[in-house]
Amino acid sequence: MMKRIAVLTSGGDAPGMNAAIRAVVRTALFHGMETVGVMRGYDGLMEGDCRILESASVGGIVHRGGTILRTSRSDRFKTEDGLRAALVQLEDWKIDALVVIGGDGTYRGAHALGALGVQVIGIPGTIDNDVTGTDVTIGFDTAVNTAFQAIQKLRDTASSHDRLFIVEVMGREAGFLALEVAVSGGAEYVAVPEIPLDMEKLCEHLHYSRKRGKTHSLIVIAEGVMSGADLKNRLQDTSGYDAKVTVLGYIQRGGGPTSFDTVLASRMGGLAVESLLKGESGKMVCSVGGRMVLRPLEEAWGTRKPLNPELLALVDILGV
Amino acid sequence: MMKRIAVLTSGGDAPGMNAAIRAVVRTALFHGMETVGVMRGYDGLMEGDCRILESASVGGIVHRGGTILRTSRSDRFKTEDGLRAALVQLEDWKIDALVVIGGDGTYRGAHALGALGVQVIGIPGTIDNDVTGTDVTIGFDTAVNTAFQAIQKLRDTASSHDRLFIVEVMGREAGFLALEVAVSGGAEYVAVPEIPLDMEKLCEHLHYSRKRGKTHSLIVIAEGVMSGADLKNRLQDTSGYDAKVTVLGYIQRGGGPTSFDTVLASRMGGLAVESLLKGESGKMVCSVGGRMVLRPLEEAWGTRKPLNPELLALVDILGV
Amino acid sequence: MMKRIAVLTSGGDAPGMNAAIRAVVRTALFHGMETVGVMRGYDGLMEGDCRILESASVGGIVHRGGTILRTSRSDRFKTEDGLRAALVQLEDWKIDALVVIGGDGTYRGAHALGALGVQVIGIPGTIDNDVTGTDVTIGFDTAVNTAFQAIQKLRDTASSHDRLFIVEVMGREAGFLALEVAVSGGAEYVAVPEIPLDMEKLCEHLHYSRKRGKTHSLIVIAEGVMSGADLKNRLQDTSGYDAKVTVLGYIQRGGGPTSFDTVLASRMGGLAVESLLKGESGKMVCSVGGRMVLRPLEEAWGTRKPLNPELLALVDILGV
Amino acid sequence: MMKRIAVLTSGGDAPGMNAAIRAVVRTALFHGMETVGVMRGYDGLMEGDCRILESASVGGIVHRGGTILRTSRSDRFKTEDGLRAALVQLEDWKIDALVVIGGDGTYRGAHALGALGVQVIGIPGTIDNDVTGTDVTIGFDTAVNTAFQAIQKLRDTASSHDRLFIVEVMGREAGFLALEVAVSGGAEYVAVPEIPLDMEKLCEHLHYSRKRGKTHSLIVIAEGVMSGADLKNRLQDTSGYDAKVTVLGYIQRGGGPTSFDTVLASRMGGLAVESLLKGESGKMVCSVGGRMVLRPLEEAWGTRKPLNPELLALVDILGV
Repeated sequence: MMKRIAVLTSGGDAPGMNAAIRAVVRTALFHGMETVGVMRGYDGLMEGDCRILESASVGGIVHRGGTILRTSRSDRFKTEDGLRAALVQLEDWKIDALVVIGGDGTYRGAHALGALGVQVIGIPGTIDNDVTGTDVTIGFDTAVNTAFQAIQKLRDTASSHDRLFIVEVMGREAGFLALEVAVSGGAEYVAVPEIPLDMEKLCEHLHYSRKRGKTHSLIVIAEGVMSGADLKNRLQDTSGYDAKVTVLGYIQRGGGPTSFDTVLASRMGGLAVESLLKGESGKMVCSVGGRMVLRPLEEAWGTRKPLNPELLALVDILGV
Repeated sequence: MMKRIAVLTSGGDAPGMNAAIRAVVRTALFHGMETVGVMRGYDGLMEGDCRILESASVGGIVHRGGTILRTSRSDRFKTEDGLRAALVQLEDWKIDALVVIGGDGTYRGAHALGALGVQVIGIPGTIDNDVTGTDVTIGFDTAVNTAFQAIQKLRDTASSHDRLFIVEVMGREAGFLALEVAVSGGAEYVAVPEIPLDMEKLCEHLHYSRKRGKTHSLIVIAEGVMSGADLKNRLQDTSGYDAKVTVLGYIQRGGGPTSFDTVLASRMGGLAVESLLKGESGKMVCSVGGRMVLRPLEEAWGTRKPLNPELLALVDILGV
Repeated sequence: MMKRIAVLTSGGDAPGMNAAIRAVVRTALFHGMETVGVMRGYDGLMEGDCRILESASVGGIVHRGGTILRTSRSDRFKTEDGLRAALVQLEDWKIDALVVIGGDGTYRGAHALGALGVQVIGIPGTIDNDVTGTDVTIGFDTAVNTAFQAIQKLRDTASSHDRLFIVEVMGREAGFLALEVAVSGGAEYVAVPEIPLDMEKLCEHLHYSRKRGKTHSLIVIAEGVMSGADLKNRLQDTSGYDAKVTVLGYIQRGGGPTSFDTVLASRMGGLAVESLLKGESGKMVCSVGGRMVLRPLEEAWGTRKPLNPELLALVDILGV
Repeated sequence: MMKRIAVLTSGGDAPGMNAAIRAVVRTALFHGMETVGVMRGYDGLMEGDCRILESASVGGIVHRGGTILRTSRSDRFKTEDGLRAALVQLEDWKIDALVVIGGDGTYRGAHALGALGVQVIGIPGTIDNDVTGTDVTIGFDTAVNTAFQAIQKLRDTASSHDRLFIVEVMGREAGFLALEVAVSGGAEYVAVPEIPLDMEKLCEHLHYSRKRGKTHSLIVIAEGVMSGADLKNRLQDTSGYDAKVTVLGYIQRGGGPTSFDTVLASRMGGLAVESLLKGESGKMVCSVGGRMVLRPLEEAWGTRKPLNPELLALVDILGV
């Protein structure tokens, strides 16, 4: 019978991770099990940097950003030596099963542990939303709202000064965040890694809005396309438009989670523990069409998750 | 060929209604059509209180709460005389089709117009989320976050003073808002109109948390069950617990929309216009599993939309 | 030589109290002293419910609402027996001097201890701002902004529905909070405990705004005048106006402090410790014209702190 | 007798400018005068780009960021030709007196007009707070809170990843904003233009915090000292510390005003109009020790406004 599970967070931190940790601990308690918190992701796992999490340890943490377990990106864990060190600690700490919270890098580590016989379930936690298999990841809604609010502040200055603003948002490989705030923020153009940058179309949009009397404009660019500063220079060279650049940077990662992310994280944490009790392993909790389901971890890095074409079309229609 | 459509908001206002209005206007423009804004819901329709909405009329409105078209609840519109007055105005203003934004009362009005030959599409806008057929309505996510943030503020005082708080939230007929914030706010107990209040279970939960050392607790109640003040009295009589009551009231309706509601409203507004162009009528735009689909207006008042039992179970597990 | 000081919070909690506690602890450390945190105000002092506060104990607490030391209102402490119990604990814990954070009730307790030879300094922490001697108290700016933001949300609904709103804010004895948000929120009328309610003038203002075409109005009332519900009834009886009432309640106390309150609390906490080092006692830290000064504790309850007449006049001018 | 006054905003926009405009318009109306709004600062004045502002024109604008009158920095206005053009327009529009809202560049323009016989009063509106003569300027409190909230978000990630963060805030010539958020944000070190950067002290602070077990640190730098990126490189070269840099940028200018800025702007706008009625000219409204007073415009650029040394000392004490 399962008596003790462990939970860790790995990769970039995301708002809502603490709510997922709380849900794991309290669902485990509800079923008569104990939870060990592993500090600093796989680094802490290899070193046995662990502590028992009581119900009270996770009281009052839900609304804080970041992760109380801290996080890291570990190179050593990708080696055989690293995996072995982890196995030793899992045995020493008498851990029956493991919940990992993070993005697809985190899942690869979990998959490797699973291949060695460790019972493991993943929870998608990343502001980038770039995990294939789940519609949405923990932290995405919060990051989108943070960027959305920052863009609303920029609009005030943009409209007072008749300015063109370029906003660079997070997203090295994926444009989910950029696309979402381009729609909600009313951007004229959005540049995402999934689609080649079309300078001609961008300039046409700007010309057209100016002609229609719009005195200020907004372009959203994901960092993976190029930097906001580079786009500014290309725009200046191509068309003579002078833009102001804002790089939202790390503030997009921080802050307490929205209610949506808190509920999502709570549901995912709860299901992860219940899945372990049913003997599931090597799977991740996914939100599909509003329901929580399990899918194989490998799906996360199989195919690239596509952007919603409906949202791409909306940018062209709404931002005029 | 369709040349001019109209849009109105009716019933209680909801954050995001302005984003839906903008999407209607700009999508119509994109397809070469003009939009007439009808003021004060069906009241304004019967009186011909209308104005042409240009692209610039809806610039900068997206992030404001409420509705720039204002809203009302109209008794006269439920009569034959009211409907006839509306038909006259629709003809006078040369309006080819109508988009109505509101809850199920609004849809009944739209349905009556549809029966008289008016081409009409509904968009669900209400903070209560009690429209059958769609997973989510415009304004719900914003209202949930407003209540969630208020509850976080109450927690500060609750934990400083070792107090029990009862929070009364909106919801005369439906407990969607109450349930959502009970999960994200970490409530011990949630009382919703859909389920009989179980004073015994409530008291047990409180006893159990106290025994476990928790010094402050939170109960969320939807106004449709009973008032927070009444629950306080019953709790006092039954068990001797003394609670502080907070009624969130109208602040739950206000404020600029979240990014989620802005995107949802934009997608729904866009699809409403495109559906009219395809000749659709008597239907409402619904969000089902993350996709936008059309469903008959009558579905909205056919069966009661059920609460998610998974969330109900989570309250018991997480709030301990 | 002074080696160990104690700090406690008493009365109603206020945002920024934690920043004051941090400043006391770190300033003491900077001068080579240790700080004892007393839990639950004077109740904890009489019971010796104390703990040593390290620098790390106060890391990350600044931005949380409430008080990590908790607070209470103690009747026993007003008795000779209570004072004696406190003296015993101060000796047992080898405490050389005491910093108390709270309002004028807290100061009376501190004054009584001072009369018995305890070296004591007060810091004004209350959202009501009703401490004579200081221009501003810790928590006031945060509470004002919380009420201000709530009023902005109400305005959205008020203007969408053409409504008259009555907002009841905190303030049993004093109208500082009500007056401040009446000015920033653009209220037509403000009712404060310091000035008799003038129903005639109130109705005149409402008539005048309606006549001028204003379709929605806002009245702010401090709870000490009468309840919002009572005002609604009187208004209905007198003039036929129908108002919606919102009671902001405990959310006004909660939330993380504004930057202003954090800085104010930091300055006050720092000065309190430095004053103790200079041998000061029986005084409170006050902010006067932007500077921090010491004043005798007795001033706090000597005369009533007056409202700013300039702000009262502004309500009449701006709210039209 | 004075019948018509004008108001303009010039230089960088600041939250609260709209509240000042509203107060000017409504105070003028209260005294039976009319207000003309001049668009785009001195550029619009020279071109006669003006419109009458009714009471309703300034309803609902108070809580929006930026300035409804727009703003600009004008080179032509510094020439004799520019001044003459402005005089012609003032006469054409029958403007008896002028209120200008902005920083010291704006005041120089006002002073030049005053020398030509125009009755003019200045209101300090700039997020930089670098106007000598007044304790505080409109927009400063809002910008400080915006930066403060951004820093709180960074702390979440910093503590989850054990990181050192450098935050670059606005302030080319003055460090008021940097210093204020360094105190409220709990920074280890603050770099301001008024004081030479002390790399040795900075490194010592970092060493000392690390030694004491603190795993994450924050440095605040005003853009006028050097860029955050440059500081990162110098820190890397000098001491080997690796920092993450965040540039807050234009979001610091935007957003709706805090209650404090709204009240400040309302008081200043009201006093500006009343001063004109009393025949005052060539002066600016200042907030000194919480009271509103008039001072000669020239004071604004006479001497450099000093930083508060008490706050500088607090950074050393609190940030450990």
